[in-house]
Amino acid sequence: MSNEGYRIAVVGATGQVGSVLLDELGVPDDGKRTPTAAGGAADGFPPAGAGLPVREIVPFGSERSAGSTLRGMTVQPLNDETIQGFDIAVFSAGGSVSREWAPKFAKAGAVVVDNSSAWRMHDDVPLVVSEVNPEALDDHRGIVANPNCSTMQLMVALRPLQQEAGIERLVVSTFQAVSGTGKAAVEELLEESRAVLDGADVPAARSYAHQIAFNVLPHAGAFVDDHTDEEHKLINETRKILGDPTIRISATCTRVPVINGHSETANVETREPLSPERARELLEAAPGVEVRDDPQNAAYPLAIDADGRPDVLVGRIRRDRGNDRALDLFVVGDNLRKGAATNTIQLAVVLHERGLVRPTAADAVPALA
Amino acid sequence: MSNEGYRIAVVGATGQVGSVLLDELGVPDDGKRTPTAAGGAADGFPPAGAGLPVREIVPFGSERSAGSTLRGMTVQPLNDETIQGFDIAVFSAGGSVSREWAPKFAKAGAVVVDNSSAWRMHDDVPLVVSEVNPEALDDHRGIVANPNCSTMQLMVALRPLQQEAGIERLVVSTFQAVSGTGKAAVEELLEESRAVLDGADVPAARSYAHQIAFNVLPHAGAFVDDHTDEEHKLINETRKILGDPTIRISATCTRVPVINGHSETANVETREPLSPERARELLEAAPGVEVRDDPQNAAYPLAIDADGRPDVLVGRIRRDRGNDRALDLFVVGDNLRKGAATNTIQLAVVLHERGLVRPTAADAVPALA
Repeated sequence: MSNEGYRIAVVGATGQVGSVLLDELGVPDDGKRTPTAAGGAADGFPPAGAGLPVREIVPFGSERSAGSTLRGMTVQPLNDETIQGFDIAVFSAGGSVSREWAPKFAKAGAVVVDNSSAWRMHDDVPLVVSEVNPEALDDHRGIVANPNCSTMQLMVALRPLQQEAGIERLVVSTFQAVSGTGKAAVEELLEESRAVLDGADVPAARSYAHQIAFNVLPHAGAFVDDHTDEEHKLINETRKILGDPTIRISATCTRVPVINGHSETANVETREPLSPERARELLEAAPGVEVRDDPQNAAYPLAIDADGRPDVLVGRIRRDRGNDRALDLFVVGDNLRKGAATNTIQLAVVLHERGLVRPTAADAVPALA
Repeated sequence: MSNEGYRIAVVGATGQVGSVLLDELGVPDDGKRTPTAAGGAADGFPPAGAGLPVREIVPFGSERSAGSTLRGMTVQPLNDETIQGFDIAVFSAGGSVSREWAPKFAKAGAVVVDNSSAWRMHDDVPLVVSEVNPEALDDHRGIVANPNCSTMQLMVALRPLQQEAGIERLVVSTFQAVSGTGKAAVEELLEESRAVLDGADVPAARSYAHQIAFNVLPHAGAFVDDHTDEEHKLINETRKILGDPTIRISATCTRVPVINGHSETANVETREPLSPERARELLEAAPGVEVRDDPQNAAYPLAIDADGRPDVLVGRIRRDRGNDRALDLFVVGDNLRKGAATNTIQLAVVLHERGLVRPTAADAVPALA
């Protein structure tokens, strides 16, 4: 870091998560984005990067968007010249861009925080939720991975329970919002919804295999076998982040007609006894969690409330009526914020606070097989 | 039964389920109902009551609707004169009407099939899914109960697996459609959705505690403790219908912005080993089930496909990656049809086929404490 602060690259700045990355870095909004496509207003919450000394922020985009203006900055193309001289690079541009350009940024001296799935399960890449396993950052080799949205929010809720009582088994069902798929999917949900309301023909599905409006798709991501990649991520990333490969996990990931904010039911079987009261106490004290659990007064986590909030909402904390060793929870988070951009910038802050923003020797940067 | 067939009372005929009861009894639609509020078109499916000899169908409604015309028939009020002379009475008018009038119809000589929760857990009332436990009808004492919608569809999917391998434990999450709450809730979902699409203020919630459009409520029914009555029903009714009080059940019931058709994830731990392949085979041979399970070709159960169908759709049949003794399923059904009206009429047909449509001695009719 120079005296004036870090020079930060935002790769994929023109996308939906990119927009929130800029928010969390404190770049003033120019009012041009689609409100429904980039999370609710984060009014009242300071940007996640408020504590990060910044000298310059440089947005990167595709060939097509390079040269355009974004919040007063010029979007840069990715090439061997433009990527030089960065301290930090945050990526949200998809797996193939990350596979190619994350090591190049790292070899050019930046620490990369990558939001794609490309590097998450790599042995030499820490997979980190800022409140959950920040110590994993200590051994980074130039590339750090941000977990998948549906895993992220669950980890924030489960870590305090795991630390107290261990986790034996999880049965998770997700209710994922369309913003996780991207701007086009949000527009498609709205367009399909309007067609249904108007009694018009619903246009052929583009972002998904079927109509999402007024429907539930037991299909988030792509099928790799009898599970989707989204379900495999939830299983594998959970084990890596919680540092326990023996946790037994059932995952069903669905897409629901919600604009932003993933909801999840989690049945959590602990290794040691854990009462709902003690779980509530632990969660109330946990960083990154807001407990909303007064069902008699209709207080519980809601997607429309999570939208725009940095924290994860947890409620419906109760004893599984069929298992004295299990609890049931309902966990809701803003998939674009804590589920993606907010954690990315929080990781940059932790890297800064721990003195870990420094160049990695080029031959130590992780490589993909 | 007279030579000409049964005289059948439909109590609650003007409601949403009442409308489908009339459909399933083969009463021609007068085109006046709200299509979105009464399930999709059942085109191509014969009415559930096609095999039932019928002499006369008499619709009953509230004081307010008595005297009005419904599909060419005059709506009757409930009183000691109007309830005389029936062979069968099907009820979908809410718990308090059923508590009072079901025994009166039974004492007047009818067999009552009741769709409310009032009688379901009564020791002297069979709780029956037509394909699952029809033998329970044999001991009826004038009142038969129709299970709750979210339980019903699950039973159709689980029975074949239970018969093969027993069921040890269930973890169920529901994604329930608003039609389960009634017509007003459907209209409210549509109204709220339009407000969101138009960028207008969303009107204050009436049918639910919160906005349902583009949201997920971890709250279906009413909270009785840390669980809702809907969740208790799922637990208690499942055990009664499957005839096994030892099945351990976790239930989370949510409401989603779907017009009609409940979706459910079910993690099913069997007592004996059961492969997904064998489960699929059993389900393909099971009555009342349609297997849709070719995820590579995006074939799986969908709420918009279940809408208007009499059968329960089952798919995503696979081994739980965390438990060799468990399977994961996705189960979708039309909550107004198989989940309510269709099963009610199917029970009337089974009662007819088994020669069980006959008066009960007045002093044998079940009473509520």
